[in-house]
This record gives sequence, C-alpha cells and structure tokens, in this order.
Amino acid sequence: MSTSSSRKALNIGNINPHLLKAQYAVRGELAQRSEVYRQQLATGGDELSFDTVISANIGNPQQLDQQPITFFRQVLSILEYPALLEKEGLFPEDVRERARVLLKEVGSVGAYSQSQGCLGIRRSVAEFIEARDGYPADPRDIFLTAGASSGVNTILNTICSHPATGVLIPIPQYPLYTATLALTNATPVPYFLDEATAWSTDAEQIRSEISKAKAAGTDLKCLVVINPGNPTGATLTESGIEAVIALAAEERLVIMADEVYQTNVYSGEFHSFKKVLRNMQKASPGVYDEVELVSFHSVSKGMVGECGHRGGYFELVGFDPEVQAQIYKLVSIFLCPPVIGQCLVGLMVNPPAPGSPSYELYQKEYNSIFEGLKLRSRALYDAFLRMEGVKCQDPLGAMYLFPTITIPTAAVEKAQEEGRRPDEFYCLRLLEATGICVIPGSGFGQREGEWHFRTTFLAPGVDWVGRLEKFHEGFMNEYR
Amino acid sequence: MSTSSSRKALNIGNINPHLLKAQYAVRGELAQRSEVYRQQLATGGDELSFDTVISANIGNPQQLDQQPITFFRQVLSILEYPALLEKEGLFPEDVRERARVLLKEVGSVGAYSQSQGCLGIRRSVAEFIEARDGYPADPRDIFLTAGASSGVNTILNTICSHPATGVLIPIPQYPLYTATLALTNATPVPYFLDEATAWSTDAEQIRSEISKAKAAGTDLKCLVVINPGNPTGATLTESGIEAVIALAAEERLVIMADEVYQTNVYSGEFHSFKKVLRNMQKASPGVYDEVELVSFHSVSKGMVGECGHRGGYFELVGFDPEVQAQIYKLVSIFLCPPVIGQCLVGLMVNPPAPGSPSYELYQKEYNSIFEGLKLRSRALYDAFLRMEGVKCQDPLGAMYLFPTITIPTAAVEKAQEEGRRPDEFYCLRLLEATGICVIPGSGFGQREGEWHFRTTFLAPGVDWVGRLEKFHEGFMNEYR
Repeated sequence: MSTSSSRKALNIGNINPHLLKAQYAVRGELAQRSEVYRQQLATGGDELSFDTVISANIGNPQQLDQQPITFFRQVLSILEYPALLEKEGLFPEDVRERARVLLKEVGSVGAYSQSQGCLGIRRSVAEFIEARDGYPADPRDIFLTAGASSGVNTILNTICSHPATGVLIPIPQYPLYTATLALTNATPVPYFLDEATAWSTDAEQIRSEISKAKAAGTDLKCLVVINPGNPTGATLTESGIEAVIALAAEERLVIMADEVYQTNVYSGEFHSFKKVLRNMQKASPGVYDEVELVSFHSVSKGMVGECGHRGGYFELVGFDPEVQAQIYKLVSIFLCPPVIGQCLVGLMVNPPAPGSPSYELYQKEYNSIFEGLKLRSRALYDAFLRMEGVKCQDPLGAMYLFPTITIPTAAVEKAQEEGRRPDEFYCLRLLEATGICVIPGSGFGQREGEWHFRTTFLAPGVDWVGRLEKFHEGFMNEYR
Repeated sequence: MSTSSSRKALNIGNINPHLLKAQYAVRGELAQRSEVYRQQLATGGDELSFDTVISANIGNPQQLDQQPITFFRQVLSILEYPALLEKEGLFPEDVRERARVLLKEVGSVGAYSQSQGCLGIRRSVAEFIEARDGYPADPRDIFLTAGASSGVNTILNTICSHPATGVLIPIPQYPLYTATLALTNATPVPYFLDEATAWSTDAEQIRSEISKAKAAGTDLKCLVVINPGNPTGATLTESGIEAVIALAAEERLVIMADEVYQTNVYSGEFHSFKKVLRNMQKASPGVYDEVELVSFHSVSKGMVGECGHRGGYFELVGFDPEVQAQIYKLVSIFLCPPVIGQCLVGLMVNPPAPGSPSYELYQKEYNSIFEGLKLRSRALYDAFLRMEGVKCQDPLGAMYLFPTITIPTAAVEKAQEEGRRPDEFYCLRLLEATGICVIPGSGFGQREGEWHFRTTFLAPGVDWVGRLEKFHEGFMNEYR
C-alpha cells in the first residue's frame, strides 16, 4: 500500500471492494507493458530485442491487418458530413441512397437517439434476424448497444439482485463475465468446457454444477454460453444447443447467448440460439414457451471488425414486459449508444444486395478477410503442432486459439519465486523476448494444473509465428 | 404485477432491487409518450391538436435547430473514409492536415484504442486544460469517456463501497446522479440550491447537511457540483467555488465537478474547479494539497452539441495512484470509449486556429449558435415573466430554464385523483395539449410544496413559446 493512501479521502482500503475483486486480464499487466514497449519502439527503443509489438492479446482486427469494408465507411463518411451527398460521382449510387435512408432515420448522427436505439435501425436488425433464423423478430425487443460488452453489463445488472444470485459461466470464458459478476457482487458458477472434444459444451457437466451450486445455497438465475467460443473457438452443434435450451427450460435459467463471432465459423455452421429455440417451440408446443433468451451481437468481430465504433445489439426473447421496461429504464440513464455505431449495426445487418453497384467490392473484401483469417488460423495451428509440449484443438471459429502448454518444473518454480502463475510467467517471458502479447489461460479460467494461453490469429504474416516458435524452443531448453 | 410474472425466471419481484429504485425522468413516461405522438404525426395523426412535437425535455441540440460545426464533421468524414484525403480540393487544407494527424494517432477509428483513450488525444486535452486554467495537466490523469454520463458512472462505481457511502447532491440536480447512486446502492445526501439568489450554491447549507448526515451515520465521501447548473443554469463565482473547495478539504470529500456546460455561459464567466483549486494551493501552500477533484467535460453540450457521438473526458486531480489504477481497470473491462467520439473530443479542445483556412467559418458558426441560445433563453424567460403565477431566474448558463409554477388547488386535487404529482400533472397536460415535452421539477428535486419544470431553450422559433403561454392561460382559467 502506498504511503499516500492514508492522506487521501479515497484509497485502496475504502473504495468499492467489488471493483478490487474484479479481474480483466485482456487489458491487464501484459497489455499495459506491451503499450510501453510500443512507445519505446516509436521513440527509438534500441534496447529491445524486437522491432514490432504484436498485440495478439485482443481481438482488435483493424489494429492489425484487417481493412474496413469500403461500403460501410463510405456511408459513414456521408453521415458525418452530409454535404458530400451533393458531390456527384464521389460515391456509388447505393452508398448515397443508404446514407440518405439512415440520415432520414437518425436525423443527425450528433443527436441522441431513442435510448433503445434508432427505430429504423432496430427494424433492419429484426429483418436480419428473421432472414437468418426463419422466424420473425420484433424491433421492440431489440436494444442497440455500445458493443456487446455494454449489453452484457446491462443484462447482468438487471439479473443480479443479491450476492447469492448465480450465473453459470463456461470455463474457459471471456473474462467480461466474471469481471462484471464481481462488480455486481453476484456468484459466478463455473462449468468446464471439454477440451478433448474440441471444447464442446456438455449439458450433463452443467447439470452437475447446478446441483452443487444449489446445494451450496446459490440462487441460480442465468446460464452464459459463448458460441462460437471465446477463447476456445468452439462452435456448438444444433443438438448441443438443444440440450442447453432444454436444461435452461427445466431449471428456469435465463440464457445469455454471446453470439458475436457468428460469422467467424471456419468449419461447420453457426446455429443461433433463437432459431433452435423457435424450432423446439414449434416441435413441442407449450414445453419451451417460457424460455428467456438474450442474444448478443456486435460490429466488432466477424468481417466487420469495427471495434472502435462500439456498436452492437441484443435481442430479448420471452422476457416479462415489466422486466423489459426496467431494462429500458437502465439504458435510458446513460442516454443512448453511439449513433454512428448504431448506423454501422444497420449496415452490417443489411449489406449491399446482389446487383447493386457496391456488391462486388463488398463480396470481394468480405471473402478476402474471411479466407485470410482461416489461413492464418491454420498456419498458427500448424506451428503449435510443431512445438514441444503444446497441444491445440482445431480452429473452428472466432478469432483465437487456446493451446495447452506444458511448463517444465524448473519454470514453475521460477514463476513461484516471482509470485506469478506459471502461464503468466511464460507469457511475460514471451512478451519480453519477442514483443508478442498473448494472455495467460488463468485470465480465462482453466482446469487445475493445466496451462494455456490465448492468442488471436489476426496479426499479418508468418514472421511473428516464427518468433513464437523460436521463443518456445528456447524456453523449453532453458527450463527442461 | 402482470400475470405472466410468476411463469418467468426473471420478474419484477426478483430482479435487481436497486434498478427498481432508480428513477430517470428525463427519458421517462413523458418522453416516451412524446415519441408516440411523434410517430402518430409521422403517419397522419389527425386526432392530435398540434402538428409538431417539441422535445424540450432533453438537451439534444442537433435534434432541434443546432447544426454541427463544419470543421469537426469534415475531419470526421475523412477519418471514416481516409481515401477522401486523395481528393484534391474537396476539403480545406487544415481539415486534411488534422485528419492526417488524428489517423496517425488512432490508426483506424475502427480499432479499439487504449482503454483510457488515445494518448495523442489525451495530450490535446491536457494542453486545452493548461491553456484554459494556466496550470499544467497530465495526459495520464485524463480518461476519455463515452459522454460525461459514462465518466460519472465510473467514478461513482469506484467511490461507493457500501450502502452508507454518502454523496452530496445539489437539489435540483441532473437525475443521473441519484439514479446512479440508486444503482450502486449508496446514499444521496441532498443539499438545496438557493432559488432566491439565482440558484447559488451555499457552503453553509452544505455544511449543515453534512452535520445531519454524519449524525445519521452516513459515511460522506463525495460532493457533486454541477457548474454551470443543470437544471438551474446557475454559474458559480470564483469565491463560491473557493468556499466549496475549502469545505471539501476540511471534510475530506472528493469533489465531482460536472462542468459540461462550461461554454454555455451567457452572463458572467466560467471558472473551472481545477483552476480555482490550483490558485488556492498556490496561495496557501500545504493547505489544499490533498484535495481530490474529478472534472467532467463532454462534446454533447456547448456549441459542439454532438450528443450522439458520445464523447467526453474526466480529469483526475490529486487522486491516489492505487485508486487511479483501479479506475483504469474498471474502464478497461468495457474496452474503450467510441473512437470517433474520442476524435471529436480532440477537435473540440483544439479547434481551427486564427489564420487557418477553416477559422473564419468555425468562428461564424460558433458565435451564431451561442447568440441563438442566448436570444432564445431571453425570449423564453420573457414569456415566463408574462405568465400568471410563474417565477423564473435570469438565464445565466447551460441550456435550461427551471421556472417555479403556481398550481391552483383544484389542479392539485385533480392530480391527486390521478395519482400524480401536481407538476407531473401540469407537464402531462401541456404535452397532450401542445406537443411540448418538458420535465416536471420532481424529476430533479425541489423544496416541499414548490413546483417547477425544466425546459430547454433549444427549440427554434417562438411559435412554441406562444403555444406554451396559451396552454398556461387555459390551465389557470380551468383550475383557478
């Protein structure tokens, strides 16, 4: 504790204890150190043994190789400066037309929208969901958000009513969930994904955690599923989703389906929870009518990759109208999500149609990003297979690989000396030696005695993969 | 309670009780009803007795008359679509140059920035503060935010550690404060502003509330000041600020200075809390060194008026570094504020310099918005003076007037019959009769037995002021 603490009204001893408890490794010590290196390199930085920092710690496509989709950005540039509409020939006609429609809907992108998001854009989202799932969606059930994180925060703040409120969380998980549960002072109830079967979700495993949690007095309210998985990349099958929904119905759990990677599927097919739920409701009338589902989506991932624009939405399915009104009140306190981000959601769900002037370029850009991600995921996966003591599941979806690493006893001891977890020690060494920033598995959760790290496969080229392999070899030689 | 409640896992009886308690009138029943009217009018709406809805409930300049500043939007359009840089002659040279600088700093506006906001933009903010106050500012103490609301939420979530944590709130106040305190389950400690002296802040009044709160076992941690005031428009004098700072130092209270209306000053001068604090520290070495201050600013208000872009910042002054690290962790969980909004903060604090190609237009637009606000505030004020039983303070700052209204006994009784507060009844009648949406004083807090409403003076023209006067006359005649 710093000596200054006691002189201040606010100090580490008296601030919100739930904040102290929250952990968020994705932007923690390693990420901060990588930023320091980046600045050092920008101002000379001769003392470092690498010449670039590779931020593989976070799914931030446009910080790395990924270029924005031209159609989206052309429309946004007009929304920012509508006088560009008067310049004939500057943009394709469908860009101008789309900008006109969006401007009519939002007025100015500098004005607050409705708290739930602009109605016209929510209508587009509803049409997208309907086209994707084959079942209708209602714009009144759609809330536009500042990225999916903000939506998750809204829902958990609604659900969590007391410290014993339990939320089932996959392990490994994206740490937004445990961090937000720490802040809301509720109880995360972990269930393990099965690494041996491509990180699948096993309803029986969840059922057994439910029994234990109930016995411990936890008031279980909600089940989080991340599909495709973060950090695992796993993609759930239709029957896997059915099993989860059946369990939620039986146990009266709200399902939070984090579906932000729904277009990042490199093998198999994405099935939305909404579609599978509606199928089940149709097949067994009355049995699943009361299921409560929230589905999250975002402009940050997929081939859009517009993290910085903070756009997203969630759809409420089967919620009590009184609860929905409280969710509306909560979002209204913070006025509205960024309007440019809302417009980008509108563009993502309604891209150029076949035959329109921008269609061909859009398809080309979209496919090239998709193929690039797929290729890089394979290249990284192949490298892991070559590395001593490293195991990795096939890359199926999302933007990440989450390999298991074997850490030699000497390294584990060395880590303990430094007061660090072994995987943290490994990742720190990797960063210091190569400038590659990845996140230790302990930031996401892993089984006792296992060690992993999460890396994105967004960084361009293969040079950095070579650096990673070389580091690993040296590390194993040093501590073997 | 709806009959469906019991069938749902989540219902009004078991969600977060702090959310149930939170109130936010600015976007409450009246605002929602006005949206319904707006949609009715858009699709025919013959049954209504007015032909436009006037949203005077919220400071949303670009929904009404205010045009965006050209320079800002030209730069933003390039940031969205950098290929526009290649079009010679499309934009003035200083617009292009500024876009190049910002692109260099953020990379792509579609990439996540650092959680605290882009460093280059935080440097610009620090330079702005230094030029404004005559004292240095450190970019490391500046956090860019998604509007001031998000910053207030961050700080209150850090400060509030248990239900007895007390935060002093001016009454009337902007209801973000009480709503957020309800959500964090802490104790708002109201202190009254003095309507008779232009809604001034009286340190002695605060002192007396402090004594009462302490006697009641409240653990006072923080004092909120809104300057210029919302909803009052009051602007604090330098000596008024000194008195507040001295009190905070004596009582070891963190000062939250909501200074989002710092350029909306129509009479007198704006003094920042930071400048006054540094003056006091200089004049009395050692006495005020430990004062902790957070100052909030935003792109939503002033002559910028870019609410929809959700941009803002706060500066921490005198905070314990360990607490500051926790604040960093909290914002990092939600990744980063919208990057386009960050860029707009950078533009707001560093507008075109004299002599640059865009300077003249910028000045013209800025001054015309300022003069328009000033004129409309006087016109509305004059109308209030003409109205029976209405009293109003001189418009000094911000975007609002907060007149006192006398509500006849018959109307009070009628309101009680409907289960409404008298001011709510008045505002609802006004909306139904005229389409003008204002917010009852009870949404902001007022002394027992007094009634007010808050109206912005953003709506163009004077026609709606006439509608308001006519309604008031009819209301008084009906219930006198």
